[in-house]
Amino acid sequence: MAAQAEIEHPRKAFGWAARDSSGLLSPFNFCRREPGEKDVAFRVLYCGICHSDLHSIKNEWGTSIYPMVPGHEVAGVVTEVGSKVEKFKVGDKVGVGCLVDSCRTCQNCCDNLENYCPQSTFTYGAKYRDGTITYGGYSDSMVADEHFVVRIPDRLPLDAAAPLLCAGITVYSPLRYYGLDKPGLHVGVVGLGGLGHMAVKFAKAFGAKVTVISTSPNKKEEAIQNLGADSFLISRDQDQMQAAMGTLDGIIDTVSAVHPLLPLIGLLKSHGKLVMVGAPEKPLELPVFPLLAGRKIVAGTLIGGLMETQEMIDFAAKHNVKPDIEVIPMDYVNTAMERLLKADVKYRFVIDIGNTLKF
Amino acid sequence: MAAQAEIEHPRKAFGWAARDSSGLLSPFNFCRREPGEKDVAFRVLYCGICHSDLHSIKNEWGTSIYPMVPGHEVAGVVTEVGSKVEKFKVGDKVGVGCLVDSCRTCQNCCDNLENYCPQSTFTYGAKYRDGTITYGGYSDSMVADEHFVVRIPDRLPLDAAAPLLCAGITVYSPLRYYGLDKPGLHVGVVGLGGLGHMAVKFAKAFGAKVTVISTSPNKKEEAIQNLGADSFLISRDQDQMQAAMGTLDGIIDTVSAVHPLLPLIGLLKSHGKLVMVGAPEKPLELPVFPLLAGRKIVAGTLIGGLMETQEMIDFAAKHNVKPDIEVIPMDYVNTAMERLLKADVKYRFVIDIGNTLKF
Repeated sequence: MAAQAEIEHPRKAFGWAARDSSGLLSPFNFCRREPGEKDVAFRVLYCGICHSDLHSIKNEWGTSIYPMVPGHEVAGVVTEVGSKVEKFKVGDKVGVGCLVDSCRTCQNCCDNLENYCPQSTFTYGAKYRDGTITYGGYSDSMVADEHFVVRIPDRLPLDAAAPLLCAGITVYSPLRYYGLDKPGLHVGVVGLGGLGHMAVKFAKAFGAKVTVISTSPNKKEEAIQNLGADSFLISRDQDQMQAAMGTLDGIIDTVSAVHPLLPLIGLLKSHGKLVMVGAPEKPLELPVFPLLAGRKIVAGTLIGGLMETQEMIDFAAKHNVKPDIEVIPMDYVNTAMERLLKADVKYRFVIDIGNTLKF
Repeated sequence: MAAQAEIEHPRKAFGWAARDSSGLLSPFNFCRREPGEKDVAFRVLYCGICHSDLHSIKNEWGTSIYPMVPGHEVAGVVTEVGSKVEKFKVGDKVGVGCLVDSCRTCQNCCDNLENYCPQSTFTYGAKYRDGTITYGGYSDSMVADEHFVVRIPDRLPLDAAAPLLCAGITVYSPLRYYGLDKPGLHVGVVGLGGLGHMAVKFAKAFGAKVTVISTSPNKKEEAIQNLGADSFLISRDQDQMQAAMGTLDGIIDTVSAVHPLLPLIGLLKSHGKLVMVGAPEKPLELPVFPLLAGRKIVAGTLIGGLMETQEMIDFAAKHNVKPDIEVIPMDYVNTAMERLLKADVKYRFVIDIGNTLKF
């Protein structure tokens, strides 16, 4: 049985939590651990709302632990550092993404790929090694080992930085790993939500030509005029899709609903890469011969390691890559969740924790 | 309409052909072109029987052109060279694989990846640019541009060399392209037929630890004792499969029947690669989350380019990598096809054209 953080930890904390799978959040008093010698404590100022927060509070993946304080796009200012903390000092702008721990000894951890450590610990709804539950960023404060804390450059506003810690790294990592970060390449982005719009921005910042592929014709103007995409394909328009066959070096597919892969594989040039970052619940249909005939790959990636997350956020600051956000007060969160379910947000809600979380 | 090679070309040739989709082959007189200045003519001595020959003569892919002289694992001795041939002279041992032409100008052709040229011409059952039909190696002679002719090293017997030209390169190319050619890696091979047994041999020659994954428990002894595999997994044995989860750097999947991918993806380590070289007719079920969680890829490759085919055959000669073959006379071919359908061959039939093709 999980130890009770409300009881076992000494530091009072306050946030909003889901108590059950109803999907509703409400104010919640809990506790966090005393910062250890390698820990950084920080005041949370902003926290993004990721679609997985919605899945998690409703227990749609069947693994939720209640009470649950969601939030893994957390940005704030350091209030305290442990005696052996080397990278941070009080007053630094910092963030925490999806992970707060990993085994630190496996090959993936040694390779700075903590995100693929089989024992990595998610920022909320998981358990620390001591058995206490992790609570996320819909709260006034965080405590985390400095290894899992990212420095947010001064050039990047904290509210815009928050979503980079999940949505940003989720699309940056595959662009880098699969070599889709070279100027002159032609990159497709499927789906234009929180992940998709960041994929467009990062791919453009890498110098790629970017084509957005969407089921919604009404996103065309937005994609091209606001996000800077070079072209737009309506995935249901056979003629458009046919004309674009064999033109893309790679695709970042952010769609988590079941959808056909064959047309996307067809859009790829030989040796092209279709990288899934959304996770449909049911298996997709994979036509094999088109893969063979073009030496194409279908792949997946999951967020990124801490070193790469820092690299991503530094890159974002340098190239002025920022998510489009709608900043909301804490008590708007339940309405925001309803709107998120309808994809009624451009493109990420960010909770103004610092100014609106009322005790 | 295709021009008639029997009429339009001046050189008499003789082989065995399918006249319809019955699956039966019979003696066939036809003609080949006069060797051009870049052409090599050679006497065919051996030709391997690839499973795709069987699919093709039965028109199972719906694209067959009759009469069809199959055979794309062709080995023989040069009898004539055109005035501008640079690489070969009369008496050289040579081979032709799956391709006899490509556009020579597209990016893939420029990158020595003629196998991914959209206009590549298959060795049989296709059409040359002049509209005449290509005829394969179940015949006494071949004429091909020297670019599509491979030199067979003296150390390699011609009968054993023949199957390398399709089965060999089909598994060698993905091992190389996906970096599975490094000593110490752990490579899985799914299916133990013509392709699979070559995958085991090449992977071993690269210094990998090799695990064969098969539905047939009775192939274990063969895989380990004869082919040199290090271990064997029965894919239907849940306990065995579970125990081997996360142990493989890559898998060469040679199975062309519909089969589940989830257990194979599970066998891969993080960042592992499942490479399909068989082409199931129906789409396979692709579970996406396991790809994400381990940054794994599912990929396909199709034979190899000419430069790599030469590299493969030189490697095979140097490391004594040879297929296990059953040499048969020409008039045994229809029986051989029946046995092939039942997978009753270890592991490749090779027709002794030179000694048994009777006019």
